[in-house]
Amino acid sequence: MNTVKQSESPVWNRLIQRADIMDSPEKHLKHLLKDNDRIEKFSLKAVDIFYDFSRQRVDEKTMDLLFELAEFKNLKQRFLEMVGGEKVNVTENRPALHTAARNFSDDPVFVNGRDVMPEIIKVRNDIKKFALHVHKEKITGSTGMPFRHVVVIGIGGSYLGTEFVANALDFLADKKIEIMFLSNVDIHNFGKIASIIDVERTLWIVISKSYTTAETMANANQVRSFILEKGLDPAKHFVTVTSKGSPGDDPDNPVLSSFHMFDFIGGRYSVTSAVGGVPLSLYLGYKRFERFLKGAEEMDLHAQNARENENIPLVAALISVWNNNFLGYPAQAIIPYASPLSKLAAHIQQLSMESNGKSVTKDGNRLDEPTGGIIFGEPGTNAQHSFFQLAHQGRPFPIDFIGVIHPHYKQYQNQSKGVTNHQELWSNLIAQPTALAQGKEDANPAKSFSGNRPSSTILLKDLSPENIGRLLALYEAKTVFEAFIWDINPFDQFGVELGKILATDIRKEMAMKNQDKSNTFENVDPITKFYLNTLFPGN
Amino acid sequence: MNTVKQSESPVWNRLIQRADIMDSPEKHLKHLLKDNDRIEKFSLKAVDIFYDFSRQRVDEKTMDLLFELAEFKNLKQRFLEMVGGEKVNVTENRPALHTAARNFSDDPVFVNGRDVMPEIIKVRNDIKKFALHVHKEKITGSTGMPFRHVVVIGIGGSYLGTEFVANALDFLADKKIEIMFLSNVDIHNFGKIASIIDVERTLWIVISKSYTTAETMANANQVRSFILEKGLDPAKHFVTVTSKGSPGDDPDNPVLSSFHMFDFIGGRYSVTSAVGGVPLSLYLGYKRFERFLKGAEEMDLHAQNARENENIPLVAALISVWNNNFLGYPAQAIIPYASPLSKLAAHIQQLSMESNGKSVTKDGNRLDEPTGGIIFGEPGTNAQHSFFQLAHQGRPFPIDFIGVIHPHYKQYQNQSKGVTNHQELWSNLIAQPTALAQGKEDANPAKSFSGNRPSSTILLKDLSPENIGRLLALYEAKTVFEAFIWDINPFDQFGVELGKILATDIRKEMAMKNQDKSNTFENVDPITKFYLNTLFPGN
Repeated sequence: MNTVKQSESPVWNRLIQRADIMDSPEKHLKHLLKDNDRIEKFSLKAVDIFYDFSRQRVDEKTMDLLFELAEFKNLKQRFLEMVGGEKVNVTENRPALHTAARNFSDDPVFVNGRDVMPEIIKVRNDIKKFALHVHKEKITGSTGMPFRHVVVIGIGGSYLGTEFVANALDFLADKKIEIMFLSNVDIHNFGKIASIIDVERTLWIVISKSYTTAETMANANQVRSFILEKGLDPAKHFVTVTSKGSPGDDPDNPVLSSFHMFDFIGGRYSVTSAVGGVPLSLYLGYKRFERFLKGAEEMDLHAQNARENENIPLVAALISVWNNNFLGYPAQAIIPYASPLSKLAAHIQQLSMESNGKSVTKDGNRLDEPTGGIIFGEPGTNAQHSFFQLAHQGRPFPIDFIGVIHPHYKQYQNQSKGVTNHQELWSNLIAQPTALAQGKEDANPAKSFSGNRPSSTILLKDLSPENIGRLLALYEAKTVFEAFIWDINPFDQFGVELGKILATDIRKEMAMKNQDKSNTFENVDPITKFYLNTLFPGN
Repeated sequence: MNTVKQSESPVWNRLIQRADIMDSPEKHLKHLLKDNDRIEKFSLKAVDIFYDFSRQRVDEKTMDLLFELAEFKNLKQRFLEMVGGEKVNVTENRPALHTAARNFSDDPVFVNGRDVMPEIIKVRNDIKKFALHVHKEKITGSTGMPFRHVVVIGIGGSYLGTEFVANALDFLADKKIEIMFLSNVDIHNFGKIASIIDVERTLWIVISKSYTTAETMANANQVRSFILEKGLDPAKHFVTVTSKGSPGDDPDNPVLSSFHMFDFIGGRYSVTSAVGGVPLSLYLGYKRFERFLKGAEEMDLHAQNARENENIPLVAALISVWNNNFLGYPAQAIIPYASPLSKLAAHIQQLSMESNGKSVTKDGNRLDEPTGGIIFGEPGTNAQHSFFQLAHQGRPFPIDFIGVIHPHYKQYQNQSKGVTNHQELWSNLIAQPTALAQGKEDANPAKSFSGNRPSSTILLKDLSPENIGRLLALYEAKTVFEAFIWDINPFDQFGVELGKILATDIRKEMAMKNQDKSNTFENVDPITKFYLNTLFPGN
């Protein structure tokens, strides 16, 4: 196996040298920020999104080199290839066409010579019709009761994006439907939901491309037996989102409706497909789901069409790689100053870490540079009262601050210290990036701040479905641009396979034990045996 | 200012050398795990908690050196000094006595020559009585309606621990009371709660030691005006948890009851004080809160009394520092295979990162070694379907796996593939640490796993209040032991001050603008001005 040395490319090497320069005291952010035009020079605006990287540890020369890297890596071209249906997921020999899920142009998108847009449009129309019938109470549960609870049964990419969007837009949920997520195979997850819902009024959406995901199948089975115990007909309480012809799309196993997923849209990129479409249309109405898609489409078009130095996700990806590989930050935080975005970090954590936590190039060569980083985050100002101590005085990590200009709930305008709560929130959103960047010297070392801690700030005008779509698509495009820089495949996830294989062996031992109490786990290693004996005491 | 070189201590230097040896191929975990007695040698059991560090990258010799470090740093002695009321919070010149909050012995604890236990016991009794009266509906809202919603108004340490415990034990919540958290000053946080609750049946608990925390005061004011708008009497809908004599404990500002906090218990260590006691006793009943305290007390006593090599939090701290400073891992994940522990990582994130994200020793000298690390996490198996790709094939990070032997909801025993959902969960809990440690070579580089990725596994017998108390106190004691190794003060948080100061200046600008539209923000730097103009358009 070959090792690919990023450092063999000339521009990579020059960036390494540039990082040395940017590490020097005169390039401390407190000096860079003396340039009164800095925010003009180091910010972008497009499709109603503002992206400010003036508090990143870059200068013009650094950005020039990064744009050179972008050209060297052919980023724009490769994004266009992805959108055009080329098989960019090389290890699995298929395209990555999440952008097609929100394509509202009349242009075809060909996969193996066949236009996939008619199928995609059909799924959208199926969702629209189904959601409308549920809202009009034409489709009901088996006892004729309208649906009031929707429970998504799905894990990873089958729920994280939907959970993020549902939270972000929950103040728009006017369909008298609550949404819940049965993701974990932990019986506590099911037990809690079962204790809350009215089963006669509950619709379960099973989401699994293959319809073989262990956790999702175990949960779907548990739910099925629960519905049967209550004397109801499962066929009237389930829908599935799955591949055409999977065990979840089988007339012998009837459900209210089955919506198709395509193998060219990966789980973590699937919230704009039926994966998000079915639950979000039930929760918010199809129209709002479509507005969300259109926002995402606008950002996709921006990513395709904007010049490198005006391209928000592309610049964000360059900054991310600069921080990761050249300045050496292993982690990054996402801090939305907006409670409705509280699940953004969890979604991007999957999107980014599963896409780009790789150690081989797309061509199967080992990399000499780390790819991907740890993503974590909580809403601000909460995060300030939690882990920002470390951000200011401990290990530095870059931060994406996210702000919303116009909040919902405008009826509450109470003022404290002369400002509304939204203004108080913004006083912190403005202060934190400055404090992190500038630092402050103090005679008391415990009160000194070394500063020079980088951040970006992203602003949304408001929490409209369009803006949530734009924000989502920004992070999706950023993630794939990063992968293109690293020459990795952001669409596979072989790293999860080994654990699955070992779990299968352990499950077999447990199943044998359930059948035959005399199984004393002699086939497994001593540690596994110890844990099996702990779970099955009395051996 | 002096710089303290950890590497000047002989044992620290020998650990650096040891890390070189542990980095060699023959010390790969796949080899270390060939020892059939490894789990016996590298695990501990105490107060019903099992702690397995057999998949950490240590051998006997490494542990010997770490125990030498523990002695050199006087860890046990310093823990006893903390528990005994010495002023271990040197920068703020006060003790750190969270352990006293769950002290049920008859022994006094002296602060400045005065036994503080009578006051602590009085607060516990006040809480018990108040909760009982609310549950018996002797204390009601201003219209005589019993309380059905409790909303905690508090941020950081004033809610994260309570949120963790409330989630962990929510299946025990049989008092007909829902609990919610108004932490963020974001108006979306208040707006959502206001849209859910019945204000006549809602009790608000304002938690702030100084009663000056900007976010908490803004929220309390917003709530007060909301209650008044509804024609209700705020005095009958508020309680406060605050310092004696603070503005929240003022007869001119009447509330249903005021419970005292003490300056010797820091926010992030305060869930066993009235901070957690008032909301958790209302939500779960005082008896369960006391059981939780007693579990925490047991772990405190274990941390004080157990020998170094049998001491779970002490060993966990040694492992943590070993991973952080010697093996060089900057981050650590907490992955509970139990949905009810879904807020554990967020709580420990604050506890650990705010306590130990420091760059100076307790004596004010600069450190040459990083302290603290990034803590993040989500429940398993969810995390497997989110960011474990990076854990297996990208940047390695140590993981604390947490399992629960006996789940709640025993009525659901449906089997898939021959196992119950709880068994399916455990097959993953057992498989993942093995997969991470062992790795697997494959002819296809994309399917190769380098392994040697360290983890610990912590087991709880069940989700009893006692076990949640033990788990909490384990992480608290681990955190302070880490600080003692680094010679830092884990009880202050000066790192949050600079942002507060800058936010105050910005808030003043906003307040002036609210008063006088002609304020054009001429006193601030260009970036701040840009953001102010964005929030106040039309300048």
